[in-house]
Amino acid sequence: MPLITLSTDFGDQDYYVGALKGALLSVAPAATLVDLSHHLPMRSPAAAAHVLRHAATEFPAGTVHLAVVDPGVGTARRPVVVAALGYLWVGPDNGLLGFAAASPGACTRLLAHPSLRRSTVSPTFHGRDIFAPAAARLALGFPFVDAGPEINDAIQVPVPAVYDDGSRRWGRVIHVDTFGNLITNLGGEVLPADPAAIRVWLPGNREIRGARTYGDAEPGQLVALVGSCGQLEIAVAGGNAAATLDLGVGAEVALTTVTAAPSTIR
Amino acid sequence: MPLITLSTDFGDQDYYVGALKGALLSVAPAATLVDLSHHLPMRSPAAAAHVLRHAATEFPAGTVHLAVVDPGVGTARRPVVVAALGYLWVGPDNGLLGFAAASPGACTRLLAHPSLRRSTVSPTFHGRDIFAPAAARLALGFPFVDAGPEINDAIQVPVPAVYDDGSRRWGRVIHVDTFGNLITNLGGEVLPADPAAIRVWLPGNREIRGARTYGDAEPGQLVALVGSCGQLEIAVAGGNAAATLDLGVGAEVALTTVTAAPSTIR
Amino acid sequence: MPLITLSTDFGDQDYYVGALKGALLSVAPAATLVDLSHHLPMRSPAAAAHVLRHAATEFPAGTVHLAVVDPGVGTARRPVVVAALGYLWVGPDNGLLGFAAASPGACTRLLAHPSLRRSTVSPTFHGRDIFAPAAARLALGFPFVDAGPEINDAIQVPVPAVYDDGSRRWGRVIHVDTFGNLITNLGGEVLPADPAAIRVWLPGNREIRGARTYGDAEPGQLVALVGSCGQLEIAVAGGNAAATLDLGVGAEVALTTVTAAPSTIR
Repeated sequence: MPLITLSTDFGDQDYYVGALKGALLSVAPAATLVDLSHHLPMRSPAAAAHVLRHAATEFPAGTVHLAVVDPGVGTARRPVVVAALGYLWVGPDNGLLGFAAASPGACTRLLAHPSLRRSTVSPTFHGRDIFAPAAARLALGFPFVDAGPEINDAIQVPVPAVYDDGSRRWGRVIHVDTFGNLITNLGGEVLPADPAAIRVWLPGNREIRGARTYGDAEPGQLVALVGSCGQLEIAVAGGNAAATLDLGVGAEVALTTVTAAPSTIR
Repeated sequence: MPLITLSTDFGDQDYYVGALKGALLSVAPAATLVDLSHHLPMRSPAAAAHVLRHAATEFPAGTVHLAVVDPGVGTARRPVVVAALGYLWVGPDNGLLGFAAASPGACTRLLAHPSLRRSTVSPTFHGRDIFAPAAARLALGFPFVDAGPEINDAIQVPVPAVYDDGSRRWGRVIHVDTFGNLITNLGGEVLPADPAAIRVWLPGNREIRGARTYGDAEPGQLVALVGSCGQLEIAVAGGNAAATLDLGVGAEVALTTVTAAPSTIR
Repeated sequence: MPLITLSTDFGDQDYYVGALKGALLSVAPAATLVDLSHHLPMRSPAAAAHVLRHAATEFPAGTVHLAVVDPGVGTARRPVVVAALGYLWVGPDNGLLGFAAASPGACTRLLAHPSLRRSTVSPTFHGRDIFAPAAARLALGFPFVDAGPEINDAIQVPVPAVYDDGSRRWGRVIHVDTFGNLITNLGGEVLPADPAAIRVWLPGNREIRGARTYGDAEPGQLVALVGSCGQLEIAVAGGNAAATLDLGVGAEVALTTVTAAPSTIR
């Protein structure tokens, strides 16, 4: 039974989300549709990729991920399908799917086969007229290799640089979540195994200590922790870090690691 | 497998949407439920109809569309089911379903049969107690002709007039979408085949030129285009036309068509 | 076919809801997922319980209700499953599921069996790593009795007192809905069979008369009625009572009942 997820910046007040679902079910009536988010950062493929990626990669292999954040709809930007990470990703080639296209073993193809789109295509709603029909047909078994020519220049979005100035590791806030937590692009091996060893500096040289989770600090206290997507995150226990600190996407953060951590929040 | 869509003005913070779904699945456990929008314009059947119509008509024939924008719940306003456009539409008779009831070959019936509703009906939540059970039973095959007596006076909502003053075609903004695009009631044959031929005047006699899609203009530039529902729409490339122009639902717009369009945005 | 509902305070802008769904479908690919609300009152298990309860109890017996409002994620608060009211309820033991655990015949167990969770558990996202896998396995038939040891001290949240001062019955607003209606904790036998007999006093001794439904009053008029969850509710016909009265959760209301009601709104 085909499984298709939907991620867009369409919001919830228009007919766009409903039309997308209707277009999918008109082609694949037995498909299971799963909303990931329709509030991806508007017209911001790079920021939207963060949300898409960490939601979509929890799904069973074979899932088709339909993603539409498409400020260039109807222009020369290319519609694509990416086979990567065990999934098919369908959407515009504008950076939104860059992480998938750049993953090991990925293959990106243009959505060129006429049976993957409607016979009439509106210049302003390729979600309904190109991407949804393509996602539905691919979910039904249309051969990936027949979608269109392979391309090797799928658009990559610049990711904020992570660098080491000799004493601190510098990165940036890439997402602010619903709770006001500041998610950074510092992750992987730069983070210590013991979160108590984390020290973070924010603009103004304010120091924040590491913690394992939100509730390990007193309400209102700032903490730095390794979030659920494996990236450094700054939070206020029971509060909103973005509002408290007046920081948002793009803010610089610096990380160091201490070896002993006697006074750390547990 | 029965397919039922849901469109309401219930928002997302209450138990209303969940209760509607529970009421549907209690009657038709194998039904597929599809959310169209739960943010239809609050208590505004006329405005809600625009969103409902353009989402719902993308669905496969036989879909049951449950729609609840119901400021008159519990009063004398009638609960109805409309067979129209290849679908069944279930909701209050307050104009929300007027477009379906007025479509060629439509038949509207009262929801009068006792097996289409709960034995106890709250005066304030007919979505849960009347419309959802009716939609679910009809989706399971309850005969439309047995729903209740046919009526021929389903409520129609006044649509803003479109008229020609001899030099310009006048219409109004009927919806502002998530992106700030102004959707008008000017559509069909009054729009030229080539969007480059479009000229629109807004209050203050400001002229806007036609374009094929948003990205065909410079960021920040105003454009007029034929939107994905076939109606004239005013947008700001990469921006929010409603905020830029300080215009909303009800604003007057005037359309003319030029024959040659040398300086048009492409 | 397993049926699982989802209720969280995750909002709609992050990967959290999508990740939860992916975690569920990775374990139970054929499960039907139904969103109740992802806008439960943030970090407020007590307030969230109101929405959860009245949505969830509309579902067919056997439904698994996954509920995550979890400010204490990763701390000593216990993950539980409650068998109650014909359902299984999966979530944190922080009061969110207290109403279920306290219902007649309920049984609460810890989620202790290792096969109910992921092998690696993030300290900040038990929804994805513990609750979703547990809900999915239980929906697939994992024996409830094997989930973990039974507990008898599931956390109950304090509910605002309802009391009688000799002349009036006092309660409080416990929820403000999307329409601005003020839902109180006054319900059951204290409410008269005839809503016309209701009289409510608000702070400042303002009197409000009873009505059967919103549309039985003139637009703008305040009314008190028995809402769809059987509790006393204060509304403004066609308007927003919370904004009009500048009242919210916690506001005190007093109820009396009149025997004759000649001038009541019908």
